[in-house]
Amino acid sequence: MSRALRKKEVLERLKALGEGVYTQMQRGIFPAVRMASRSVRNIDYDPHLRQYVLGDQKVLRSARNVRHLRPLAQLLWAGHVARSLVSQGKTSTLRDLFYMAQADEVHFKDQAESDNIVTDLETILGYAREDFHVFPEERSSIFGDLTIEYTVPGYEGRRLNLMSHPDGLVIGPTLTSAEFVHCNAKICIVIEKGAMFTRFVEEKAYERFKALLIQTAGQPPRATRRLIRRLNQELGLPVIIFTDGDPWGMHIATVIISGSANAAHLRELATPDAKWCGVYATDIVNYKLPSDPLTELDIKRLYELKKDPRYEGELWKREIDMFLKIRRKAEQEAFSRYGLTYIVDKYLPDKLKELAL
Amino acid sequence: MSRALRKKEVLERLKALGEGVYTQMQRGIFPAVRMASRSVRNIDYDPHLRQYVLGDQKVLRSARNVRHLRPLAQLLWAGHVARSLVSQGKTSTLRDLFYMAQADEVHFKDQAESDNIVTDLETILGYAREDFHVFPEERSSIFGDLTIEYTVPGYEGRRLNLMSHPDGLVIGPTLTSAEFVHCNAKICIVIEKGAMFTRFVEEKAYERFKALLIQTAGQPPRATRRLIRRLNQELGLPVIIFTDGDPWGMHIATVIISGSANAAHLRELATPDAKWCGVYATDIVNYKLPSDPLTELDIKRLYELKKDPRYEGELWKREIDMFLKIRRKAEQEAFSRYGLTYIVDKYLPDKLKELAL
Repeated sequence: MSRALRKKEVLERLKALGEGVYTQMQRGIFPAVRMASRSVRNIDYDPHLRQYVLGDQKVLRSARNVRHLRPLAQLLWAGHVARSLVSQGKTSTLRDLFYMAQADEVHFKDQAESDNIVTDLETILGYAREDFHVFPEERSSIFGDLTIEYTVPGYEGRRLNLMSHPDGLVIGPTLTSAEFVHCNAKICIVIEKGAMFTRFVEEKAYERFKALLIQTAGQPPRATRRLIRRLNQELGLPVIIFTDGDPWGMHIATVIISGSANAAHLRELATPDAKWCGVYATDIVNYKLPSDPLTELDIKRLYELKKDPRYEGELWKREIDMFLKIRRKAEQEAFSRYGLTYIVDKYLPDKLKELAL
Repeated sequence: MSRALRKKEVLERLKALGEGVYTQMQRGIFPAVRMASRSVRNIDYDPHLRQYVLGDQKVLRSARNVRHLRPLAQLLWAGHVARSLVSQGKTSTLRDLFYMAQADEVHFKDQAESDNIVTDLETILGYAREDFHVFPEERSSIFGDLTIEYTVPGYEGRRLNLMSHPDGLVIGPTLTSAEFVHCNAKICIVIEKGAMFTRFVEEKAYERFKALLIQTAGQPPRATRRLIRRLNQELGLPVIIFTDGDPWGMHIATVIISGSANAAHLRELATPDAKWCGVYATDIVNYKLPSDPLTELDIKRLYELKKDPRYEGELWKREIDMFLKIRRKAEQEAFSRYGLTYIVDKYLPDKLKELAL
């Protein structure tokens, strides 16, 4: 779906929400809004979609019920704010929204309450909050041979090739709302750390592997997860994810691949065909990498992952078991023991072969 | 100094370090290296330079002393690595260096030991480690009407205007080593948070105030502090720093302005003429900002700052006292209680007037 069409769709759904309320009132009915329940019992892992989804349970917010009045009013206020953000082409954060409520004398007891209302709005609209211009604070970055065309006010129609700045271009509201015009990349490599991203640029991975490089800076912001999905689905780019070799690195990959339970109401944050390409526990052994002992917390985390439905596949089972066997972890930089360029000269080609890419 | 000249200078100093050692050996003397001591007793705050400096104490690392052999060998190895990084135009991190030592069978017991050797090398060369291509992991970003020319291999001579991507351009090795070609900005506004940076872009602060915008993402990496200094010294841009209104925000500003004690051996990380422009404690009162109570840790920190020589000025004293009086803190986003654009429409012009900019 084009970005313009998407914006139109979000505005129409917001309008429908408001109209529903007006229509009920005009008919003399207490206005009510119905949405899928996000309670834990209504969240399931769908092995076919390979991500978490909501079940059939619904919740109702009705003005007839005095306890619903407050969240219903807050929800309609959030819808109003969303509409003005989208139509004016301005962005905000969850934190901003909490403060903006004070300007309109809408009361939230804390930010957790306003955050939850924003998630309600996502559930009702079927769109992520980034679609109604509520963005996260964190930023990651991108580099590679993709030409984009901006759609934000003041920049509409301008184009930029994402190879124009080798340190990377920040993935924020204007990049995520841009159209893809032309792409010469054949693969997308997602990298956990900034310095490793720079290494890949310096070693010309973008040329040698025709790779688009994305740096997540830890657990990627949702805007970045969506962008990765778009690159995979709209441009057909295979996606590989390169993290530190520990349970936290594995989980960065898993959240990109399968999404998270608390975003079970959304479809566009997961990239089920993306692949984790290391650092594997078996890499620590095979490449004789410098490593550190797992902490108690690391080990506890590994046992949690063993029970997580997103870790069903063979690869995950093998690697979790190997981590628990060797009780060691290694960072991406550990490959520097063979020189700075080894990771791009040797490890990456090995992995691409192993993953049949 | 041009970037090319700077590179030449770094290489010459590295060569001089090596030659000194060879010369001594050829003369049959145990080789030794002398450098300024970085012990606490040798660090002083210089009110004239408005930053920390090292005193006259020196330390000697001599091959004659068996306890010096190890750090001397490590230092010479670090010099060797620095030289190949600079001549090959590759970058690395402190973490990389720790692992690279294993390739060359140079032993460090942990990364703290290798980090310390890198600081020794900085002290001897009189250049920051970024000058010999050892970069931090963290990245911040920039946006505004400045045209740069790259000097890194593969990009030499290419130019980019930093308004080409409204989400911001990452400040990494290629941007920090670029030459400034042309600047239409009249002021540099340094902003603590990513979302606020986006707000300033959306509200066209770069046009209305002819501002170059820099996002630090918390405490800025050293590469960003150097860039800020260069913008101030090479281009004569006044610099203002906009942070959250709490002791941690104040300290982000202070480190940009006056540097830190553990970089007392370097001159190029501080921008003494930069100004903190808020959020002040007095702003919380005057603008009736939504605020949160100070925590015990915040209060303890404020008492520490009272004793810190970098907080000598009137403004600092007034604001620390006001924080302690009202016992409240406020975030940059708190201005959103007056609408999203208030901060650029009203607060920023007020502050520029107040600071006579």
